[in-house]
Amino acid sequence: MRIPLDHQSAVPLYQQIERYLRQSILSGDLVPETRLPSTRELAESLGVSRITVTNAYAELESDGLIYSREGSGTYVMAPVTPSSSPGTAANTLWPLWQREVSLGELLPQSRYPLLPASRASHPHPISFTGVGDPCQFPVKDFYKAIQTVIKRDGIAALDYGPFDEGYRPLRETLSHILASQGIRANPDNTLITSGSQQALALVCQLLLKPGDAILVEKPSYNFALALFQALNLKVVGVPMDEWGMQVELVEPLLQQYHPKLIYTIPNFQNPTGMCLSGARRRELVILANRYNVPILEDDFAGDLRYEGRAQPAIKALDPHGSVIYVGTFSKMLMPGLRVGFLVADGPIFGQLVDYKRVIDLTTSTLIQRGLDEYVTVGRYQAHLRRSCRVYRKRRDAMLAAIRRHLPPDVHVTPPQGGLFIWLRLPEGVSSLALLSIAAEQGVEFAPGSLFFVDRSEGEAYARLNFATQTPEDIEQGIQRLGVALRRLMG
Amino acid sequence: MRIPLDHQSAVPLYQQIERYLRQSILSGDLVPETRLPSTRELAESLGVSRITVTNAYAELESDGLIYSREGSGTYVMAPVTPSSSPGTAANTLWPLWQREVSLGELLPQSRYPLLPASRASHPHPISFTGVGDPCQFPVKDFYKAIQTVIKRDGIAALDYGPFDEGYRPLRETLSHILASQGIRANPDNTLITSGSQQALALVCQLLLKPGDAILVEKPSYNFALALFQALNLKVVGVPMDEWGMQVELVEPLLQQYHPKLIYTIPNFQNPTGMCLSGARRRELVILANRYNVPILEDDFAGDLRYEGRAQPAIKALDPHGSVIYVGTFSKMLMPGLRVGFLVADGPIFGQLVDYKRVIDLTTSTLIQRGLDEYVTVGRYQAHLRRSCRVYRKRRDAMLAAIRRHLPPDVHVTPPQGGLFIWLRLPEGVSSLALLSIAAEQGVEFAPGSLFFVDRSEGEAYARLNFATQTPEDIEQGIQRLGVALRRLMG
Repeated sequence: MRIPLDHQSAVPLYQQIERYLRQSILSGDLVPETRLPSTRELAESLGVSRITVTNAYAELESDGLIYSREGSGTYVMAPVTPSSSPGTAANTLWPLWQREVSLGELLPQSRYPLLPASRASHPHPISFTGVGDPCQFPVKDFYKAIQTVIKRDGIAALDYGPFDEGYRPLRETLSHILASQGIRANPDNTLITSGSQQALALVCQLLLKPGDAILVEKPSYNFALALFQALNLKVVGVPMDEWGMQVELVEPLLQQYHPKLIYTIPNFQNPTGMCLSGARRRELVILANRYNVPILEDDFAGDLRYEGRAQPAIKALDPHGSVIYVGTFSKMLMPGLRVGFLVADGPIFGQLVDYKRVIDLTTSTLIQRGLDEYVTVGRYQAHLRRSCRVYRKRRDAMLAAIRRHLPPDVHVTPPQGGLFIWLRLPEGVSSLALLSIAAEQGVEFAPGSLFFVDRSEGEAYARLNFATQTPEDIEQGIQRLGVALRRLMG
Repeated sequence: MRIPLDHQSAVPLYQQIERYLRQSILSGDLVPETRLPSTRELAESLGVSRITVTNAYAELESDGLIYSREGSGTYVMAPVTPSSSPGTAANTLWPLWQREVSLGELLPQSRYPLLPASRASHPHPISFTGVGDPCQFPVKDFYKAIQTVIKRDGIAALDYGPFDEGYRPLRETLSHILASQGIRANPDNTLITSGSQQALALVCQLLLKPGDAILVEKPSYNFALALFQALNLKVVGVPMDEWGMQVELVEPLLQQYHPKLIYTIPNFQNPTGMCLSGARRRELVILANRYNVPILEDDFAGDLRYEGRAQPAIKALDPHGSVIYVGTFSKMLMPGLRVGFLVADGPIFGQLVDYKRVIDLTTSTLIQRGLDEYVTVGRYQAHLRRSCRVYRKRRDAMLAAIRRHLPPDVHVTPPQGGLFIWLRLPEGVSSLALLSIAAEQGVEFAPGSLFFVDRSEGEAYARLNFATQTPEDIEQGIQRLGVALRRLMG
C-alpha cells in the first residue's frame, strides 16, 4: 500500500495516514472486508515507526471505519447504508423486524403541506389551507417577553424545571383565562403539553389500546384521525349537521361498538365550522356517564367567535369527571411555540401527568416562561378581540366572494367563528380533481377526503381557511376557484 | 330573592344580577338543583325589565352555572368537583373508566426532585443529583442566537414549519457533529425530537406492545425504566461489570424472552458510569442481527470523555439498519430546550417520522432555529472541550474526596467521563436509610433503588453526580456523606 506522506507538514504522520485511509474507505476505493496490512508491514513500507501506524489504525477503528479480528488482522468495515425512503427498492435488505411495524395506514391524512409540488405551478398561489394568520402573531411583544424572562430568570429558564404539570404561573394564568370563558379549571388540574396534539395523544395512549373503538364526528380533524389510525384504533364516525355531532345517533353506536372514548370538537369544528348545540352537549354528558365513556373535548378555537352566543364548554356541564378538556394557544398566538394544555378531574389527571413525564419529561421551560410573561389575561383578551375583528371581516369577505364567484349549487353553512368554511361541491364534482385544476389557477384548499376515514366520503367537500388571507386575496382566490370549478364542470 | 342593585352604578343592571348570582353559586349559598325564580318573577321583585333578568340568566347559563329544563324552570348546576390527588378519599365518586387505566406501576422511579421535603431540612444542602451544571450553559451566546433568529426569520420562527424530520439546517449541523465523532448520519435519516426522552418513547411505542419484553442493562436510567413500565413492557435486566452490559449473557436471554428491543447506554452509562467494550459492541450487533432484534443506543453523554479512547458507536458498527441511535443536547447544553434526535436507517425511519408527527406535530420551531444558530460545529467542540475540562476536575475532586472521607469498603470504579460515580456501599448499609441521614447532614444523592426494576436490588448503591458542584462543594458534600455513613454504621 502506497500512502503519500509529507514529512515537512505540520500535520502529524499518523494523521496523514489516517486521513488517506479514511478517504479511501469513504470513497469506496477500499471495499468492505479488505484486509489492511499489519501495522508492522505498513510501518516498514512507509518508513515510519510502528506506533505511528498503530495510532492511525486506532483512530479509524474508534470511528467504526475498520475493525480487527483476533489473530487474523485488520479489515475495512462494511459502510452504513444510507437511509432510503420507505417503500423503495432496497426494502428486502433491512432486518425483518423493520417490516413488521404496525403503524396504522391512514397517514396520507397527515401529509403537510398538502400540495408541495403544485405550489411551484403558479407564480402567486393563494392558499386557503393552514391555521391562523402568522401576520396576526404578536411577534414583537412575545420576543420582548422572552427577553424579560432571560433577564429575570437567567439559567433557570434553560434548565429542566420540575417534571410536573408545567410552569405554575402559566397554569394560573390559564385558569384565569378559562374562567373568563366559563370553564372552571384550577392550576392543580391543568397540565401543560407540547401542543394540543400531544394532549390528544397522551389521552388516547393512556386510555385506549389497539383495536379499541373511538367515537368521532364525521368528518373530523385530519391529524386527530391520523393519530387514531396510527394507534390502530377503530374510528366510528357520527354524522354531523349544522348543530354539530348528531348526538341522538350516539346511543346505538355506544351499544354496538362499546367505544372507549368520544372525541369531539364542539366549537367551530374542524373541518365543518359548526358548533354543537347546548342541548346536545348536555345529552352527550348524560350518555357519557350512563355508558361509562370519557369525552375528549378539543376546544381548538372556541374563543374565535364573531357572532352568536357561546355554549358552555362540555367540561363545564360535567360534574362527574367524565370530560377531559384540551386547549391550545396555537390558533390564537403562535403555533410554532408548541404549547397546549389539558384540564381533567379525578385520578386520571395524576396519571396523565405521570404519563407525560415518561413521554418527554417536560415541555420547553423557556417557551413556557415566555408565554406566561406574554399572556396576561388582559393582553390575551385584547389580542383575541383584535384577531376576531380581523378574522370576522375575512369570513364575511369569503362568504360574499363565494356568493359572487361560485355556482349557486355550491352549498355553504356560514360559521359563527373559527377558521373554516366547509363547501359541498356541485353534484358529481370531485374535490381532488378540483384541487389539481385549482392549483394550476393559483388557489389551494384542503380536499374533503382528508377529513374522513373512508376518503371517498369526502370527495364532495372542500375546506377553506378564511383566516390566513387578506380580503383582497380572498376575493381573488375564490374567483380563481370559480374559474377552476367552471372549467371542471365543462 | 333579594339582590342589592345600584341604579347609579356604571355596571349594567343585568351584570349586577349576574355577578350576585354567580357569587352565590360559587360560594355554595345557592346549592345545586336550587330552582331559580322565573325571569318574570325576578324582574317584578327587583323592579327591572324582564330582558335584564333574561340577559343575566343567559350569561350564567353560557358559563355552565345554571341550566333550564323545558317547561320546568331554571336550576343551579352541580358544581364541577375540584381535582383531588390520585389515590385520595373521593376515588369512588369518579367514573369507573378512571379506575381501569393500566399505567405501569414503576412510576416512583420517575419522582423528581428526589427529596423535595428534605431540602428544607438543611440550610445549605449540596445535591449530587441532576444532570449537567447549569452554570456551564452557554446562556448568553444562546440568547444572542435567539435574537439573531428573531431578526432574521421573523414570523417564520413562530409558525409550525413543515411537519417533517425537523429544521433542516439543524439536521445538517448535527450530521457534521456526529461525523466528527465517527457516526455517519445524514440529514435524511436524522429526526429532531422533543428531548431524547421523546425519541425513546417513539421507538418503544412504535416497536413494542404491552407485554413485550425489552432487554436492558441492570441497573439503568430511571426515566427509561419508568417509560418501559408505563408502557407495560416486561423489563429483562442484563447484569453489568466495568466493561458495561455483560453481552456474553445476552444470547440465552434472547432465546428465553424473545425481547422486541435491546436498550443500551454504551457510554458513561447512567447510573454506573461504565463504557461498553469494543468487543462487546461488535458481539451485540451480531446478536441483534442473528435474532432479528433492534438495538436502541442511547448516547446521552458519549462526548463527555475525560480520558481513554472512545469506542465506535454501536450504530457505526451496524451495516444492516439494526441500530437506532438517540442523542441529545441536554447534557452538554441546556436541558430546558427539550431538543434531542434520533438516527435510523431503513423504512423504520420514515415510520418514526410519521409517528412523531401524529404524536405532537413538530418540535418548537423557535428553539430548533435558535439551537442551530448557536451550534456550529466549531462552537460545539469548543464548548465541549471547556465542559470536559471543568467536569474532569470535578470527577477527580470527587474521587479524591471519596478516598479521603468515605470508609475503604465503599467501592468505586472511576469513570472515564460522563456525569456519574456509582458507589457500592459497605455491607449492610441501605442507601435509602443513608439518604435520609445524609439529607439531614446537607447532602443528597440518587439512591440505587431508582435504577432497578426490583428496587431492593439497588439498596446497596448510590449514584453521585459530580458535574453539578464545584470542587469545594464536592469536598464538603462528600465529607458530610462520610459523617452520615459513619453515623448510620454506628
